[in-house]
Amino acid sequence: MITLSERILNAPAGEYVDRKVNRAFACDGTGMLALEAWKNMGARHLADDTEFSIFFDHIAPANNSTAATLQHELREFAKSSFMNFSEVGGGICHQLMGEGNVLPGEIVIGADSHSVTLGAFGAFATGVGATDMAAIWLTGETWLRVPETIGIRLEGRFAGAAEAKDLALAYVGELGTDGATYQALEFIGDAVKDLSIDERMVLSNLSIEAGAKAGLFYADDVTARYLRERGHTVKPQIPESCTYTREQEFDLSDIIPLVAVPHRVDTVKPVDELAGLPLDQVFIGTCTNGRYSDLARLARIVKGKKVAVRTIVVPASASVLLQATRTGVLADIVEAGCTVGTPGCGPCLGAHMGVLGEEEVCLSTANRNFKNRMGVGGEIYLSSVATAAASALAGEITAPEVA
Amino acid sequence: MITLSERILNAPAGEYVDRKVNRAFACDGTGMLALEAWKNMGARHLADDTEFSIFFDHIAPANNSTAATLQHELREFAKSSFMNFSEVGGGICHQLMGEGNVLPGEIVIGADSHSVTLGAFGAFATGVGATDMAAIWLTGETWLRVPETIGIRLEGRFAGAAEAKDLALAYVGELGTDGATYQALEFIGDAVKDLSIDERMVLSNLSIEAGAKAGLFYADDVTARYLRERGHTVKPQIPESCTYTREQEFDLSDIIPLVAVPHRVDTVKPVDELAGLPLDQVFIGTCTNGRYSDLARLARIVKGKKVAVRTIVVPASASVLLQATRTGVLADIVEAGCTVGTPGCGPCLGAHMGVLGEEEVCLSTANRNFKNRMGVGGEIYLSSVATAAASALAGEITAPEVA
Repeated sequence: MITLSERILNAPAGEYVDRKVNRAFACDGTGMLALEAWKNMGARHLADDTEFSIFFDHIAPANNSTAATLQHELREFAKSSFMNFSEVGGGICHQLMGEGNVLPGEIVIGADSHSVTLGAFGAFATGVGATDMAAIWLTGETWLRVPETIGIRLEGRFAGAAEAKDLALAYVGELGTDGATYQALEFIGDAVKDLSIDERMVLSNLSIEAGAKAGLFYADDVTARYLRERGHTVKPQIPESCTYTREQEFDLSDIIPLVAVPHRVDTVKPVDELAGLPLDQVFIGTCTNGRYSDLARLARIVKGKKVAVRTIVVPASASVLLQATRTGVLADIVEAGCTVGTPGCGPCLGAHMGVLGEEEVCLSTANRNFKNRMGVGGEIYLSSVATAAASALAGEITAPEVA
Repeated sequence: MITLSERILNAPAGEYVDRKVNRAFACDGTGMLALEAWKNMGARHLADDTEFSIFFDHIAPANNSTAATLQHELREFAKSSFMNFSEVGGGICHQLMGEGNVLPGEIVIGADSHSVTLGAFGAFATGVGATDMAAIWLTGETWLRVPETIGIRLEGRFAGAAEAKDLALAYVGELGTDGATYQALEFIGDAVKDLSIDERMVLSNLSIEAGAKAGLFYADDVTARYLRERGHTVKPQIPESCTYTREQEFDLSDIIPLVAVPHRVDTVKPVDELAGLPLDQVFIGTCTNGRYSDLARLARIVKGKKVAVRTIVVPASASVLLQATRTGVLADIVEAGCTVGTPGCGPCLGAHMGVLGEEEVCLSTANRNFKNRMGVGGEIYLSSVATAAASALAGEITAPEVA
């Protein structure tokens, strides 16, 4: 009678445990800080039996000499330590880990808050700070307080133009940004079996926006099929009935297209209430909504039309870009007047590649609309890909058409 | 018995003339400065009969809020003034002007030094500063001293792995960076008829690196065919025999792959002399070598292989990206591990998207290797696409194989 977190961490909620980390990863930003901590510790050898990776995704390619110089050192470290290394343009850490590099039951630690994304695979995946990451490099272990779990029960099927992102905004809106602080979310219920891995990644991805330590799905046949296509044979995780601190139920057929308005992710409104709000930029991408299925959905909506506002599209990984190139999705997007950026985090963190000017308004498919995140004085609204695509065509916030 | 510059400017060399400008364009950087001058002049209405364009290419998408805010104002100005406006990701000004928007015999002024690129179409094309551009917005005219002309006589055909960029480096090396100051170059001789428009654009592009005011080709059947495919019917310009201040002759069959070493474009060496020099970055793109033919050549060389060093590929325009997407060239490039950037100038000017770290070494297909141009302390070597591609695969400067 235990939660998935308790099963993976092998201890009851509330207990503090030291655990072997199966996979640990950092990106260009946190990796540099971890490397500094590593040097301060006088550490020399990486722990055995943990898979370590460095992904250059946050400011990639480098936006200035300082970043490039720090990246140079981190690149050398990653290569000389025989870590997995993903060069600029390879893509976002969470996406690349999710492309067949995380397995059910594993403990996966990333030096980035959206590492919770990988809970979609039935792993216990969470983010740590750079100093903790350096300690994991050294010991291969980390400490955790086994979290209590909130059950997010999903029933029904999406109707109309709503998609997983709308559901994610709905549950963050319901829980609030501190509604799940240091708890795990478990996504359960009859609707789960119909959710693709991409949809699950969206739901897990946003769990940190409610303060959650992790956002988990039990691995099922969908997970097994996805991982089999990527060379792994895994068994489904059979859920036990267990007691959650509370349960929140969502009927997917009730979900409507939503927008999170500045400057909080939990302040969500129906798209219809915001219709007509003029936009300066639309941004489609990130670890939330930069996957192939997202680009394909965008292409279906904008094909043969022209966007009315600058629209930046950043594939989440080089594989996503490649697939979009091969299927014609990229051609449709470029023909519609969208701007394609280097695979990675793009302008999500406001470092380059589409920073907002003062008083500029952006509709983004990312996961955070905090003040000044994408540029001083800019305002960020968050939505689904369908809403972003319809809004790009109109130049203002627009409800997506029912497919 | 007059040069092409004298014919277009309708006055003998040495004379100062005021002339109607057919097309005038600025980019995001110079456009902002021109707009400031425009406001300082108290100007209100654009001149009639000149086609005005603004291209967002230099720092596009914006790398910080300051740039985004300035771009916002310039975008509004361009749109409210009914200028042609090309959004971030549309591509490089010179490339977009060259995609059928410059005709033989025209006077074309760009607020960017590489506006000389458009001499490839038999136009008199040159760069001016931002204040001059603001005056052209107001009056539709500019003043020029009709330049004397150096004849660059081209004979024979490329042999081995040499290409137009090697010839361009060869002539800049021969003339020196101030060898043609305020003179025009005219590219003449039997070899010209075999040069594609793309090759001519490379040769015109580098003319500013020898200090030239313009670098012109007579429009011929190749030009007429290229422009016909883009909706224009033009007549070839028949050269008259004329007296050049001097003539420099190049036999294309003698041209070998060259590299310009830091920090001068005219310091050129055979690739072989530099073979084995370790690289941190390869950059393929810019108004020199970011066209479809360049990407296709890159793809032929890297297809089925993997680059050994970070390799940033930036298409010169959205059309180039689209064509590369449709033909499979982009897929080959991405599969080889290259990083694709937003169409535009990319890291050429060191503002973002691949800035060099201290002591990092870059082999670039661009046109300038000045100190600190791509990052404080970085070193830039310039080469052809074939040399850059071979070097990307090896991770060090490598002579291209003979096709």
